[in-house]
Amino acid sequence: MIQRPRGTRDFGPSEMETRRYFESMMRSICLAHGFREVQTPTFEHTELFTTKSGPGIIDEIYAFKDKGDREICLRPELTAPVIRFFINDLTNYPRPLKLFYFGPCFRYERPQAGRFREFYQFGAEVIGSSTPEMDAEVIGLAASMLEATGLQDYRIRIGHIGILRSLLAEAGVAGDAALPILQKLDKKLYDEATPLMKGAGMSDDGIEKVIRTTQISGPIDVLKDYEGEAKVYLEEVFDILQHYGFRNLQVDLGVVRGLAYYTGVVFEVDAPKLGAEKQICGGGAYSLSELFGGEKVHSTGFGIGFDRTLIALDKEGSLPMKVRLQAYVVPVGESTRSKACEITAMLRKGGISADMDLMRRNMGKNFKYADAVGAEKVIIVGEKELETGSVNVRDMASGTQTMVSIEGLISYLGHAKS
Amino acid sequence: MIQRPRGTRDFGPSEMETRRYFESMMRSICLAHGFREVQTPTFEHTELFTTKSGPGIIDEIYAFKDKGDREICLRPELTAPVIRFFINDLTNYPRPLKLFYFGPCFRYERPQAGRFREFYQFGAEVIGSSTPEMDAEVIGLAASMLEATGLQDYRIRIGHIGILRSLLAEAGVAGDAALPILQKLDKKLYDEATPLMKGAGMSDDGIEKVIRTTQISGPIDVLKDYEGEAKVYLEEVFDILQHYGFRNLQVDLGVVRGLAYYTGVVFEVDAPKLGAEKQICGGGAYSLSELFGGEKVHSTGFGIGFDRTLIALDKEGSLPMKVRLQAYVVPVGESTRSKACEITAMLRKGGISADMDLMRRNMGKNFKYADAVGAEKVIIVGEKELETGSVNVRDMASGTQTMVSIEGLISYLGHAKS
Repeated sequence: MIQRPRGTRDFGPSEMETRRYFESMMRSICLAHGFREVQTPTFEHTELFTTKSGPGIIDEIYAFKDKGDREICLRPELTAPVIRFFINDLTNYPRPLKLFYFGPCFRYERPQAGRFREFYQFGAEVIGSSTPEMDAEVIGLAASMLEATGLQDYRIRIGHIGILRSLLAEAGVAGDAALPILQKLDKKLYDEATPLMKGAGMSDDGIEKVIRTTQISGPIDVLKDYEGEAKVYLEEVFDILQHYGFRNLQVDLGVVRGLAYYTGVVFEVDAPKLGAEKQICGGGAYSLSELFGGEKVHSTGFGIGFDRTLIALDKEGSLPMKVRLQAYVVPVGESTRSKACEITAMLRKGGISADMDLMRRNMGKNFKYADAVGAEKVIIVGEKELETGSVNVRDMASGTQTMVSIEGLISYLGHAKS
Repeated sequence: MIQRPRGTRDFGPSEMETRRYFESMMRSICLAHGFREVQTPTFEHTELFTTKSGPGIIDEIYAFKDKGDREICLRPELTAPVIRFFINDLTNYPRPLKLFYFGPCFRYERPQAGRFREFYQFGAEVIGSSTPEMDAEVIGLAASMLEATGLQDYRIRIGHIGILRSLLAEAGVAGDAALPILQKLDKKLYDEATPLMKGAGMSDDGIEKVIRTTQISGPIDVLKDYEGEAKVYLEEVFDILQHYGFRNLQVDLGVVRGLAYYTGVVFEVDAPKLGAEKQICGGGAYSLSELFGGEKVHSTGFGIGFDRTLIALDKEGSLPMKVRLQAYVVPVGESTRSKACEITAMLRKGGISADMDLMRRNMGKNFKYADAVGAEKVIIVGEKELETGSVNVRDMASGTQTMVSIEGLISYLGHAKS
C-alpha cells in the first residue's frame, strides 16, 4: 500500500472543518485590521533563502534542481517570498503596505511532536517605515488573532534588539561581530556566549551586564533602570498597545531572534502547554529587501504557527464541534426518487446542507448511514405523503417524526437548526 | 533582483480577494451538497503517480529525491492522493464517502496562456459504489459550482466510455488492447487511431462506426439509435440531472478521457472563450484504489481548474469589485494619537475594517494615502471634537464631512456601507 511521505499529514473531514474555521477566523481579523492578502509560489529559487539565512539552511530544506537545472526549493518560510514579491511588483503601492498570507511551508527535519515536514504558517508584514505605531500594529494584529481563537494560556514577550546591541557596542562589539554572540544569547547558551564575548575583549562586568539583561522580563516597569533610544521606543510601543486594549503583554529582553536582518522591536508568543515546541508566533522589525537587490525598506512582521496554535487549542479542549449534515433525503421506493432529487436540490439552493440516498439502499440501511454521518434530520419521501405535498421529517436525536409540507421544508429545517 | 520561478505566479491583494471569494463560494456549494473537505500533502511518493498514469508522467512533473533518497514529487493532480488517503485511513467511513478538496498542483511544462507550473484545482470524489445517482450527484456538484460563479458561456459534455468500449469489444478489441486506441480517439487523432484499429483486425465498417460514434453529440435524444447497458445508464443519469434542475447538459460520446482507470460515465466542461486551453473541468466514474494496493471500490469524481475558471470569468467581465477599506483613522497631532488607537480598535471589534495612520504623516499626506488605498471614510480625530465625544467623518467619494459621536460611529459606518 502506498503511504503518505514521512513527516507529512493527511487531514480528514472533521480536522479540515476545524482548520478552515480557524483559517477563516484569522483571515477576518487581518482584513478588519486593513491588511490585504497575498500569495506566493510554493517553491522559490533556493538563492532567496540562502541569501536571507546563509548556506546552512540548505541542510534543513527541500532543495532540488528542476528539469532546467535551476536550484529551487520548497519554501521554508514566507517572509522572504513576500519581500521578494514586494521588490518585484509592489513597490509602487501606497505605504505602509500591509500584507498578510497563509500557506504551507516545508522543512526537512526529524519529525516529532509539533514539528512537521509540511506545516502551515499565517503571517503579516507592514512594509514602509519604522515607527512605534507600525510595530504596535503588527504585535496587535498577532495578539488579536490569537485572542480570537479563544486560546487561554499564552504569553506575548516583547523585546528590542537595540538594547543588547548597544550594550555590546559600548563594549566595543558592534555590527556583524555581535551576531554570533546574539545567536548564542537567543538560545540562552550562556556557556557558549561567554567565551565569544571574552574573545571580543569584553570585561567580566560587561559580560555579566549583557547576560543579566537577557534575563530581564516582566511588566514595562522592568525597563526603568535602562536608558537610551531603544528603551524609549519600546515604552512607546507598549503605550500604544495599551490604548489598543491589550493587557497580556510583557517585556522580555531575552527575545533576541538571532538573525542579522532584525533591526528593532522583536517579539515571541509561547503557549506553555506545548512543552519544548511551545513557540507559536515570532516576529519583529527588520530590513530585508536590500539583501534581495531591492531598495532598503523598514518592515515589521510576524509568523504564526497555525498547526501549533491548533494543537495548543486542542490541549485546552477548545476545538469546536464538528459540522453536521442538516438533511438526508431518502425516497421510499423507486417511484419517489425523482421527487427526492428535486427536494434535495431545493434544500441545497435554500442554504440547507443536504444529501440523498445515492446507493438505492433500503430504509433501514439508510437510517444507519444517516446516523453514521451525523445527519440531523432524515427526510422520508413517500408516495402517500407526496399526494398532499408533504414529506415525513425524522429528528435523528429524538426519533420523533413530523409531517411537513414541501413548501415549508426549508423554513422548518432552518428553524429546527437554531 | 531575485525573481519568482518561471511559470509560477504571485497573487497581489486584489487578485487574492477575488480568488478567496470564489474559493469560499465553491466550498459552500460543496458543503451544501453534503461533501466534506480533506487535504493531503503537497508532495507525495512519485510511485503514486507513475502507478496511476505510467512512468511517462515523470517527464511532466517536479520529481526529485529527498535527503533520505526517497523518490518524491510535487503532486500533479489530487485524485490519486485522495484515493491514497482513503485507502490509508478512511476505509471505515460510511459509504458513499463524499469528499472535496482544493489546493495547488504542479506540472513542469512550457508556460503559456492558461497553463502554469503551479495551478489550483478544486475537486470532489464520491467513493463507494457505481450508480446513476452517484454519477449525477458528482456532475450536479460540478455544474452547481460553475453556475454559482456566474460563468455564462460553458458547455457540460457527458459521455460513457462503455459505449466505445463495447463497440471495440464487438470488433474483437477488448480490455487493455483498446487503451491506445481510446487515447488517440480522446484527442480526435483519427489518422493515428485508424491504423491502430486496422492493426487490431477491425473492418473498415467497424472503424467507421467507432469514429462516427465519437462524433455523436447533442441532447439526450442523439442516443436513440444506440442500445445496451451504457446507453440506458447514461439516460438515467440525464433523467436525474433534469430532476436536479440542470438544463445546459449535452451528450458527447467523443469524451473518452484516455486513461485506463475510467470505467463508465465521463464528462468535461469547456469555456469556449478560453481558446486552446478551454477545458475547465473533467471527470468520470473510475476504479483506482486497487492500483494502489487497496480494495477495489467504484468512485466518481472531477477536477475543476480554478485558475482557468477565473480567467474565463474575467473574459466575461464578471470578476467582483475589489474590497474597500471602510475606515481610515487619522489623529490631528500627537495629542489625539492614543484616542485614535482606541477608536481604531473599537471599529475593528465592531466588524468594520479599519486602519490608522502608522507613519505620523500630516493631514494632506494622510488623505492622499486614504485615497490611494481606496478607503471609504476618513475618521478625523481632533481635540476640539473629542471634547464633545465626537469625530469628523469624511466621505471620500463625495468629500462631505459629518460630525459623528464616537458612541454611534460603528452604527453610522455600518449603515453608510449599505
